[in-house]
Amino acid sequence: MGENNKHDEKKITPRKSDFSQWYLDVIRVADLVEHGPVKGTMIIKPYGYAIWENIQKEFDKRIKETGVENAYFPLFIPYEFLQREKSHVEGFSPEVAVVTHAGGEELTEPFVVRPTSETIMYDAYSRWVTSYKDLPVLINQWANVVRWEVRPRLFLRSTEFLWQEGHTAHATAKEADERAQLMLSIYKKFAEEFLAMPLYTGKKTDSERFAGADITYTTEAMMQDGKALQFATSHNLGDKFAKVFNLKFTDENGDTKYCYQTSWGMSTRSIGGLIMVHSDDRGLVLPPKVAPVQVVVVPVWPKEEFKNEVNSEVEKIMNELKVDFRVKADLSDERVGEKLYKWEKKGVPVRLEIGPRDIKEGCVVLSRRDTGEKITVKRDELKKKIFNLLEEIQENLYRNALKRMEENTERVETYDDFKKAIDNKKFVLGYWAGSSEDEKQLKTETMATVRCFPFEHEDESGKCFYTGKDGAKLALFARSY
Amino acid sequence: MGENNKHDEKKITPRKSDFSQWYLDVIRVADLVEHGPVKGTMIIKPYGYAIWENIQKEFDKRIKETGVENAYFPLFIPYEFLQREKSHVEGFSPEVAVVTHAGGEELTEPFVVRPTSETIMYDAYSRWVTSYKDLPVLINQWANVVRWEVRPRLFLRSTEFLWQEGHTAHATAKEADERAQLMLSIYKKFAEEFLAMPLYTGKKTDSERFAGADITYTTEAMMQDGKALQFATSHNLGDKFAKVFNLKFTDENGDTKYCYQTSWGMSTRSIGGLIMVHSDDRGLVLPPKVAPVQVVVVPVWPKEEFKNEVNSEVEKIMNELKVDFRVKADLSDERVGEKLYKWEKKGVPVRLEIGPRDIKEGCVVLSRRDTGEKITVKRDELKKKIFNLLEEIQENLYRNALKRMEENTERVETYDDFKKAIDNKKFVLGYWAGSSEDEKQLKTETMATVRCFPFEHEDESGKCFYTGKDGAKLALFARSY
Repeated sequence: MGENNKHDEKKITPRKSDFSQWYLDVIRVADLVEHGPVKGTMIIKPYGYAIWENIQKEFDKRIKETGVENAYFPLFIPYEFLQREKSHVEGFSPEVAVVTHAGGEELTEPFVVRPTSETIMYDAYSRWVTSYKDLPVLINQWANVVRWEVRPRLFLRSTEFLWQEGHTAHATAKEADERAQLMLSIYKKFAEEFLAMPLYTGKKTDSERFAGADITYTTEAMMQDGKALQFATSHNLGDKFAKVFNLKFTDENGDTKYCYQTSWGMSTRSIGGLIMVHSDDRGLVLPPKVAPVQVVVVPVWPKEEFKNEVNSEVEKIMNELKVDFRVKADLSDERVGEKLYKWEKKGVPVRLEIGPRDIKEGCVVLSRRDTGEKITVKRDELKKKIFNLLEEIQENLYRNALKRMEENTERVETYDDFKKAIDNKKFVLGYWAGSSEDEKQLKTETMATVRCFPFEHEDESGKCFYTGKDGAKLALFARSY
Repeated sequence: MGENNKHDEKKITPRKSDFSQWYLDVIRVADLVEHGPVKGTMIIKPYGYAIWENIQKEFDKRIKETGVENAYFPLFIPYEFLQREKSHVEGFSPEVAVVTHAGGEELTEPFVVRPTSETIMYDAYSRWVTSYKDLPVLINQWANVVRWEVRPRLFLRSTEFLWQEGHTAHATAKEADERAQLMLSIYKKFAEEFLAMPLYTGKKTDSERFAGADITYTTEAMMQDGKALQFATSHNLGDKFAKVFNLKFTDENGDTKYCYQTSWGMSTRSIGGLIMVHSDDRGLVLPPKVAPVQVVVVPVWPKEEFKNEVNSEVEKIMNELKVDFRVKADLSDERVGEKLYKWEKKGVPVRLEIGPRDIKEGCVVLSRRDTGEKITVKRDELKKKIFNLLEEIQENLYRNALKRMEENTERVETYDDFKKAIDNKKFVLGYWAGSSEDEKQLKTETMATVRCFPFEHEDESGKCFYTGKDGAKLALFARSY
């Protein structure tokens, strides 16, 4: 159902020959997403959306464990709200979609479709918060946002995308920064444990900071083409927004103070990253924890006469497995090879084949999506074996991605080595004390940007490879999506 | 957190003196929702949104059991799509919000913010479906939609609201109608079992039909003021949309045919209904199954010296109950009376009080939100007792609502009796053979509309009380939200 038959060319371009085309091919053959009629919008198809649902469910659980509650704020924001925070409006006004007509009439005051919700949420917080007893405010929303895209790319850059945006208010600057860093650590754990995606974490430079933030913390993942993808960000907003939205509280001593705030978000873009980290030339590869289907059962009928016998065995297996796994049986009339190929393209971690001989011998054949390995398993060990196999696959995918990231991260001392490394599609670590102007210049010369100042190298400092200044911090550079 | 302190007037207007004000008061004191800055939009606050999350979780499970998958389609729809189905555009164009500017430029082709997604989804289906093997298409989406409201009311009528919209495509008219009726039966069971809301179900008249549907099936609930609230609808769209969006398939014999379709939806409006069916003059009343907090634990410290002893007992109780129930402990420094009152207003089904004497005697005191009854319970029976109590409350709320609906539904033979019954705030059953014109006239004369032709009376027919025509079907009338 929902298969895009008319366009289903089965060919997948190899990663080496054209990575961007490979990405689009993987998305097409796995039937994840397609472009909508309005430029830059996307239609997330059932199989692609099921991935997002699994991401939502797990991440929602993790943030609620830290005391966050969900709420919902309006899609429409008065333009005047956006304008209150200077750098915020400069950052977003070029990207907003504006509603000028509604209910058959021209509006006296046009409004924008939210590109992000700081302004409308903090205006509400300023009504809700009066005393220190009302703090902290810890609210998240799952929503669609719109940012006009000139060069849209499915999942990676779309005019409309789905995300969660968390927005908190605190009594002290310290507590706000701790919350911003806590959420970043949750993104990191979530990406590594659930999506098998290793990440660099650190601080953004001033020029890469979120429009309106004091500090932007980021998580950066390495794609198989060596480019960086910003997975999720967490912002320490200081009291900037609190001041323009008059978000104040009375403390224990009766003094009136401004709140300190954070915001943090992860979007459907993460699915694009998930694809580009794990998938291969045979199609999509999904870590078991996020896979909509973890095990697909494919019956083998060498002759029609075996159909009933095999199918009733398949039913037994389904009933046995569906308690613990997301499992699906493919009883369609396609040829076995076609079925195995179809589910391989869709990245199902484990495919299970069973035919008349297997039934006689009391076993089934499992194939691993990550390694392609085939394993014959006794029926009475099936459940335990699948459980272990899914764990192995999850770990194996993470190990491979981590190895790739480590092997392709290079430290440089000179600008020449920097350029070589970037041209060799590496993540580059080097001391950096450049200005925003220098960052622009570096980008025009090498197409690389500062991804972050990694936490793991916070204590190191040395001579900037670009400006020659001493006492420079170690920065991570890469070309990026 | 998120309490609306500045506006928290504790007064609740009694239902009898002003039902609309009572509704607004209940919403305010329970802290569920408030108006957004753009007219007609709403900010769903954490406690209100938690109700929606519970509705989503349960309903999503129920529709997936029927084979429905979730997906996501764009917020923005080309205006031209809307125009393809004549009655559809007539129905919706007066309500749509139009985006004319984006990315800092005026758009060559303006587009609308989705009021509903038939057009954009069926355009996609026409690309996805080629063969009978691709059918049925069974897709749902959870999304925000925008319909411009002149007279907005929180939850009941808002410019932006949240909903699910299911959209299916089938090979035959029969299968489509069966799906439309299946989904209606799921809405009915969901409302009755989960929300404790009894419903009338039936067919809409031509004039009340969804813009573009062949048949609209509806579920109608009775509010405490005798008005009807349309809870959810399910539409048999026939092949109208399939024809304008060229949604065709090749059947087993190689013949090309148009699909038959359904759409069906339930929105945040249902929360407004939930409030007006169960709540009372003391505030919100929630059925346990949908309540964000099912049990609130309130410690009683007659003296500060007891605080630690009582709190450690509260912790034990929490650990015992949180496994099976949604439970919360109120350890704030408010007075016990204040706390009990606060959670009463929020409609928590069971409040649990425990103090030093209770600990000595090995018991706690439970109070029921629905009846106000207080029960002393032995600690070792607590879990079992709460389990039974929550079931009793759920059933009691349903029984009361059903009794009210039955007692306030009146059968009439004449137009005079009809007018009397409507003025007495009744649901009215009467034979009806009127035209759409007659419905308009009836509405101007009595403010009542035909809610539906109830399924349970399908076989009855008689003399129309308004036109005098024979062979009229029995219809349900009411004033409505």
